[in-house]
Amino acid sequence: MDTDSPAYRFYAERLIRHIVAHYKDNPTVIGWQLDNETGSYDAANPDVFIGFQHYLERKFVTPEALSRAWFLNYWGENLHTWEDLPTRDGTISTGYKLEWTRWSQMRVTDFLHWQSVLVRECAGPSQFITTDYGGMMKRDVNEEVVAGSLDIVADNIYHGTQDHYDGSFQTLQSDFSRSLRHGNFLVTETNGQTIGWTSGGQYPPYDGQLREDVYTYLASGANMVEYWHWASIHGNQETYWKGILSHDLEPNREYAEVSRTAHELQKIGPHLVGLKIHNDVAILWSRDSANAISFMPYGGGVPARSWTGDPDGYASLVQQMHHALYDLNVGADFVFPETLDFSQYKLLIVPALYISDDALLQRISEYVKNGGHVVMTFKSGFANQDSAVRWVRAPGPLREAAGFSYQEFSSLEHPLALKGDPFNVSSAGPNASQVQFWAEFLMPEHAKPLAWYDHPFFGKWPAITENSFGSGTLLYEGTYLSDKLQTAVLRATLEKAGLTSPDQQLPPAVHVQHGVNRLGKRLHYYFNYSGVEIKISYRYAAGTNLLDTSAVAKAATLTIPPWDLAIVEEN
Amino acid sequence: MDTDSPAYRFYAERLIRHIVAHYKDNPTVIGWQLDNETGSYDAANPDVFIGFQHYLERKFVTPEALSRAWFLNYWGENLHTWEDLPTRDGTISTGYKLEWTRWSQMRVTDFLHWQSVLVRECAGPSQFITTDYGGMMKRDVNEEVVAGSLDIVADNIYHGTQDHYDGSFQTLQSDFSRSLRHGNFLVTETNGQTIGWTSGGQYPPYDGQLREDVYTYLASGANMVEYWHWASIHGNQETYWKGILSHDLEPNREYAEVSRTAHELQKIGPHLVGLKIHNDVAILWSRDSANAISFMPYGGGVPARSWTGDPDGYASLVQQMHHALYDLNVGADFVFPETLDFSQYKLLIVPALYISDDALLQRISEYVKNGGHVVMTFKSGFANQDSAVRWVRAPGPLREAAGFSYQEFSSLEHPLALKGDPFNVSSAGPNASQVQFWAEFLMPEHAKPLAWYDHPFFGKWPAITENSFGSGTLLYEGTYLSDKLQTAVLRATLEKAGLTSPDQQLPPAVHVQHGVNRLGKRLHYYFNYSGVEIKISYRYAAGTNLLDTSAVAKAATLTIPPWDLAIVEEN
Amino acid sequence: MDTDSPAYRFYAERLIRHIVAHYKDNPTVIGWQLDNETGSYDAANPDVFIGFQHYLERKFVTPEALSRAWFLNYWGENLHTWEDLPTRDGTISTGYKLEWTRWSQMRVTDFLHWQSVLVRECAGPSQFITTDYGGMMKRDVNEEVVAGSLDIVADNIYHGTQDHYDGSFQTLQSDFSRSLRHGNFLVTETNGQTIGWTSGGQYPPYDGQLREDVYTYLASGANMVEYWHWASIHGNQETYWKGILSHDLEPNREYAEVSRTAHELQKIGPHLVGLKIHNDVAILWSRDSANAISFMPYGGGVPARSWTGDPDGYASLVQQMHHALYDLNVGADFVFPETLDFSQYKLLIVPALYISDDALLQRISEYVKNGGHVVMTFKSGFANQDSAVRWVRAPGPLREAAGFSYQEFSSLEHPLALKGDPFNVSSAGPNASQVQFWAEFLMPEHAKPLAWYDHPFFGKWPAITENSFGSGTLLYEGTYLSDKLQTAVLRATLEKAGLTSPDQQLPPAVHVQHGVNRLGKRLHYYFNYSGVEIKISYRYAAGTNLLDTSAVAKAATLTIPPWDLAIVEEN
Repeated sequence: MDTDSPAYRFYAERLIRHIVAHYKDNPTVIGWQLDNETGSYDAANPDVFIGFQHYLERKFVTPEALSRAWFLNYWGENLHTWEDLPTRDGTISTGYKLEWTRWSQMRVTDFLHWQSVLVRECAGPSQFITTDYGGMMKRDVNEEVVAGSLDIVADNIYHGTQDHYDGSFQTLQSDFSRSLRHGNFLVTETNGQTIGWTSGGQYPPYDGQLREDVYTYLASGANMVEYWHWASIHGNQETYWKGILSHDLEPNREYAEVSRTAHELQKIGPHLVGLKIHNDVAILWSRDSANAISFMPYGGGVPARSWTGDPDGYASLVQQMHHALYDLNVGADFVFPETLDFSQYKLLIVPALYISDDALLQRISEYVKNGGHVVMTFKSGFANQDSAVRWVRAPGPLREAAGFSYQEFSSLEHPLALKGDPFNVSSAGPNASQVQFWAEFLMPEHAKPLAWYDHPFFGKWPAITENSFGSGTLLYEGTYLSDKLQTAVLRATLEKAGLTSPDQQLPPAVHVQHGVNRLGKRLHYYFNYSGVEIKISYRYAAGTNLLDTSAVAKAATLTIPPWDLAIVEEN
Repeated sequence: MDTDSPAYRFYAERLIRHIVAHYKDNPTVIGWQLDNETGSYDAANPDVFIGFQHYLERKFVTPEALSRAWFLNYWGENLHTWEDLPTRDGTISTGYKLEWTRWSQMRVTDFLHWQSVLVRECAGPSQFITTDYGGMMKRDVNEEVVAGSLDIVADNIYHGTQDHYDGSFQTLQSDFSRSLRHGNFLVTETNGQTIGWTSGGQYPPYDGQLREDVYTYLASGANMVEYWHWASIHGNQETYWKGILSHDLEPNREYAEVSRTAHELQKIGPHLVGLKIHNDVAILWSRDSANAISFMPYGGGVPARSWTGDPDGYASLVQQMHHALYDLNVGADFVFPETLDFSQYKLLIVPALYISDDALLQRISEYVKNGGHVVMTFKSGFANQDSAVRWVRAPGPLREAAGFSYQEFSSLEHPLALKGDPFNVSSAGPNASQVQFWAEFLMPEHAKPLAWYDHPFFGKWPAITENSFGSGTLLYEGTYLSDKLQTAVLRATLEKAGLTSPDQQLPPAVHVQHGVNRLGKRLHYYFNYSGVEIKISYRYAAGTNLLDTSAVAKAATLTIPPWDLAIVEEN
Repeated sequence: MDTDSPAYRFYAERLIRHIVAHYKDNPTVIGWQLDNETGSYDAANPDVFIGFQHYLERKFVTPEALSRAWFLNYWGENLHTWEDLPTRDGTISTGYKLEWTRWSQMRVTDFLHWQSVLVRECAGPSQFITTDYGGMMKRDVNEEVVAGSLDIVADNIYHGTQDHYDGSFQTLQSDFSRSLRHGNFLVTETNGQTIGWTSGGQYPPYDGQLREDVYTYLASGANMVEYWHWASIHGNQETYWKGILSHDLEPNREYAEVSRTAHELQKIGPHLVGLKIHNDVAILWSRDSANAISFMPYGGGVPARSWTGDPDGYASLVQQMHHALYDLNVGADFVFPETLDFSQYKLLIVPALYISDDALLQRISEYVKNGGHVVMTFKSGFANQDSAVRWVRAPGPLREAAGFSYQEFSSLEHPLALKGDPFNVSSAGPNASQVQFWAEFLMPEHAKPLAWYDHPFFGKWPAITENSFGSGTLLYEGTYLSDKLQTAVLRATLEKAGLTSPDQQLPPAVHVQHGVNRLGKRLHYYFNYSGVEIKISYRYAAGTNLLDTSAVAKAATLTIPPWDLAIVEEN
């Protein structure tokens, strides 16, 4: 699928103009969704390849400069003319591979921008433009740049149900969506009854989960929730991607639950929509690092928990760190390599920032110097913007802020315990205090070791260090922590940064989200993601539970039924 | 391999005419086997595709009618001219996929029919025509239609040996073969020493298994047993598909056993050949359902016990139900969607009849109304003949006979227990009373629930129901039963239908088959499929064990040596 | 990659002549390495295929002769003209497949010979020629023939590290390399820090392992050890195939260890280089058998311990038998099917000699008759040089020397125990006395059964036999032994052949190698391949530990630190 093809663009433009002209005056049309879950489709057609060559010419100016940047003298692959450029298939150049992902992203950006201009030209003045990203944090879409062509961001979020319904993935995707334009977003698709192509996902929700889902999105800043789809389709690929109505098109269990939710929203919607969310913690998402690590994976056994089809370790690590914050009931935004100023955040999480130019590392160092707190993992600072390993002592420009250097690292064949349970997690199970997959041989210069490997060889180097630099701190994880350990490390850092609250005392199945609504009032959402009733102690200012209009005093006990929630609006 | 190609047909015809002319007067040639294990070979050559298009034109008349039948408006794939038809590769239309399998079957039928006409034209008048199907119940051969071009049906039956030798697969294939023309059949190939392409199957039979195998086939209606092959081949692909003779071409253990069997047959063969078998139970085999379910599998974990290379759940379920009958020593025939009248059977088994037109469902309902007993599983009645899900409440036209309707279903992530062991199988092991993979949310209207899920959510719907309709009953399994549970359900239904006998009291390793020979006498085969001697009580009329000519009184004790048998001919 | 292409050869020759002319007078250039890890690259280009056809014409003279040799009448594939020859893809002829591997090897031989002639023509007179084989015992390189074009053999040996560092693979590869020209060899590449393409091999050595590695090679006859590579590469495929220096290019842990070793060698190198090694045991390596078995694997579950990417059973078996000798501290050479005289060895190991002409089997028989001892496994003698199974009773021409014949064999679905623990290994663990994968049904004629299967069916035939023939013995393993059992069988045979010594009393982690240096003195290397200090009793004539110049008396206790060694030079 080559979305650059002039022939394709010619017919697509004709179709777009006709459709928009035909519907723009229909009063039920409030906005336009461009395309559907657009990606690069791994296109490498001749015109795409020539486009890449011209892009390289503009970027590197001479073949010699490109050869140097990509270390092509290795195995004698220097380019002497631009026509020497090999195609993407089978290249062994990590520089080429990374640059090709950027080119693929640029093509997606250009295609959606082209559509947005067309639609804007034809659409009604009050109609908004969006596109359904189809799962945020894709490796071939530069989502933050695409967002610039839209009026509002939208995502299709498909998630686990039944015993796997816990709100974490919805929150991750929502946090990312909200961060793209620093504001509210739409959910253009989410689970109706089932989402199976075949047998993978035919798990309809338990009673209550459909309704709880809507509020889960609203609590993270969504302004709309749509289903894929309303009625089930009677044939073809998505026969079992069932909508709210079954194939019989009659009312049913799901219809009843959606109907109940809709009637609630009719009443309390104005209190919920347009929620403003402020977070003190940010996670740095580096698409380049995700891509570059996928070409040189650090860990063969990293849990493939990620939705990105990425078993290579980057996205999985990001998800682990976001999940730890979610478990701690600490809200998070995402920031990007292009973000110039992190100072609005008190804590910056930096997972495996394998690819970065010197400037970004400098900005992170400055952030620490000026009082910021950073939690950073292994691989950060290792390679430059061309995927070349830096030829100075690792972690390169981060060395001063990190307070150590290293020359070696090792895969870990087996998980290792840490000496003496430094983060007090051993009560959480026999493997809670374990690390695995990767170990950098950190040689502290100013940093303080926080944890050591319990091993005759690896025990010579610390596993986790912390460095005070300027008025901030940089905590560094030289290895892949267990989930429990990651949560404990983040909890300790949050305490140090003064970011703890009563929210960390909630039972595990309860999650809370906060925001300010259009009336200027603070909202507190308490979700019970479990099949049993839970009582919690409400710890904020007195207010009203919007769902049943009951008054909630400070320190009152809130009873939350299974797969249900309370929404307290402060008085 | 395109067996439609005119060039191929031209040369094939020349060769066939020459071969038949050359050998037809050879007195050792008693019949002709057409081709070898013919299939569609997944051919999709241009001529095959154009043939498909013309077939669609005849069947649907207009592109619009086809678009409607296949719901092609979904994802904008309507056909406006026949030339719009995409090729088979990568279509997402379930209607297309199913129709293509029918076209593939028609091509096989046509090719074999063409050969049969040619050979009949050239062969001697007393010579019969057959073809070796190469494993019955294939998905790309319409075996019941092909049988119309033959004088007698033949199958190549390869099966487990050593500790996996139990007669069940031979009986399944034989039952199916016999049902194609309601009569005797040939075994054109079966295991000699080993059947391994490589290392998969080099397991020569234990002493006795080769001989027992011959009688196993005869007891199910075979009139001939041939080996692949006589002598082992010294090179190439089938070097280790060893015949009766080893590569040394000398007499050996297998030769001795075949020789013994042949001498026995010389004596008692006339008592065994042409066996007439009458069964009261039939299993409905729907090739369309097998194919359509394979495009939309209901279960990711269904045991791939099937010989058809089908991990998708249909054939596996058929085999489970046949195996349960085999374990209960109840003989079974197969019937087909084209079968117009089921009334000669007292019990009809209907596994996952996912694809059916209304008429077939009507015939099944009428059968129940008129006193028939039906055991039916989930998915039955769900989609029509074009693989479109019916747009009325499931199970569509079966609703009245089944006595329930349903709107929802779920994959089961884990096996579930049934509440209270309703079929008394829990003594058979900790998982005997489990169900898995799939659960339909049955809402009884007239049906009586027989079993419930032990689960807070799924427990709201019954797992198994039974409905009295007219003078018959329809038992419905809304979930995939454990093997033990399936056997218990069938045993209970057989009792209700008055189909039990002393045969259900035999020890597990002993299996019995009955029939009437050409002398009009009843035969009872008792097989010991184990390595230890077993004594059983003979419960039929007095007779003679043909193998040792000993008299067998009613209620006599029969001693059957390991991997051996008794054949009692009633006096 | 077609290294036969005339265009490729034209440019390659021009480049080779220029490079050699340019560097030949550089005094630091002491020799030339041809190409890099040359293989056949599975090339099947038209010119390669035509070359194969012409080779067949020369070898078989007529298509009819080839058809007979390859049994092509099977499935009607006889050749009538040479133009009928199908291409390699998808052939089902085992004769074709085997001959193609020979042709692939001949192409590699020819290509390297062509290079050697070119370089010799241009190089300086004192410069040697070698090539880095890149892992010995490849299936597509006839290493013993290629060696004829070289001045000295060289290998790239990559091995396990950290807890997998035990010297066994280095010794296997070294033994093979030394056997190619019966003399010293070079190690052109071995592990620096890490060898990972991606995440598979990033395991830097423990302290001491890098140094011990150098001596491990020298002790087996290496005259040089080089690293791949000196400095780590900053980009591309081998970014994490780290050299001695890290990407920072500064001194580090590995550099310090290499430096220490180099300074030691500066002092004691003249005592170590040019070691002469004499062994009494030889292993027959049959590349043809490895290839032919890969096309007809005997065992689906044979442990894939082999470096050759061969899960098919031959190389794995060779490695098991070499490893057993290594564990017993018995040195071994390799011999080849072309070896005319085995009489310099007292014990000949013959693993699965599936492919052989009659002459080789005759030479082995004669060797036994004249007093040699042979340990031989299943499959030996089964097929002839064209991969056709012999059409006489197995094991064909070996029958008299082996003292048995057989007609049948079976895969073993489960491991079997041997009756009565005939080799006293049961104390070594519950599965020590097990055999698996394969069982030949041996019918002894003169041979003495040494072990029987503990099984009602297989128990009729012996698992291991021994035959006295002339003045020697042939021990035959009709099944795949456990590692422990293989070691016990070899130990018993070594005792019988008078080949035991105090070396068999060493602790498991200690390995010893012997040789005579250029000063005519005997060297004894004692390696400690473990992380703990070990004391051993020195049992040879008094000498000096070259590493610390300490005197070592006969029966002295030698203390060997973790991952360290002693080198005793006899006085």
